[in-house]
Amino acid sequence: MEYQVKVEVSLKPGHSDPEGETTAKSLQDLRYPVETVKVGKVYTFTLSADSLEKAKKQVDEICQRLLANPVKDNYDSVVEEKSDRVSL
Amino acid sequence: MEYQVKVEVSLKPGHSDPEGETTAKSLQDLRYPVETVKVGKVYTFTLSADSLEKAKKQVDEICQRLLANPVKDNYDSVVEEKSDRVSL
Repeated sequence: MEYQVKVEVSLKPGHSDPEGETTAKSLQDLRYPVETVKVGKVYTFTLSADSLEKAKKQVDEICQRLLANPVKDNYDSVVEEKSDRVSL
Repeated sequence: MEYQVKVEVSLKPGHSDPEGETTAKSLQDLRYPVETVKVGKVYTFTLSADSLEKAKKQVDEICQRLLANPVKDNYDSVVEEKSDRVSL
C-alpha cells in the first residue's frame, strides 16, 4: 500500500530563527502589521508500507533519524492512504 | 483583530528540487521505500486586520510580493482568527 506523507519540521521555541527574523523585518518594511515570523520546512513524499500503523511508525523513525534534529527541531507528520487525488 | 496565518510555499512541478533529491537519496540509502521527496517552506505569523476577508487579502498580497516567487513557486495559505490556543 502507498501512503502520502507530509512532515513539517519547525524550530523549538527559544532557538534563533534568522530567516524568520529577516522575513518579519521585510514585511514590516513593507508596512504589514506582522510581529514575529517563524520559518519551517515541509517534506512531502510517498511511502510504501503494509499498514497505516507501520507507515506511521516508519515516518516517526525517518523524522528522528533524518529530517528533524532532536536538539533544536519539533516535527509533526500527517500520513494518509494514497488516493488518486490527494490534496496537500 | 489578530489572525493566525500559515503559508506553505512549494516548488511548481518541473522545477529542480536538489534538496528533495538529496533527502530522497539519503532515505533510500537508509532502506526506506521512498521515491521522490519534495521540500517546501512554511511561514507562520500573526497578522492584525479588521476582518478575516481583509486578512486573507493581505496574506495573498504578502505571498505574491515576498514569500513566493511567481516564476517557480506555488503557495497555499490558511488564515484563522487567533484564539488562546491555536494548534498549527
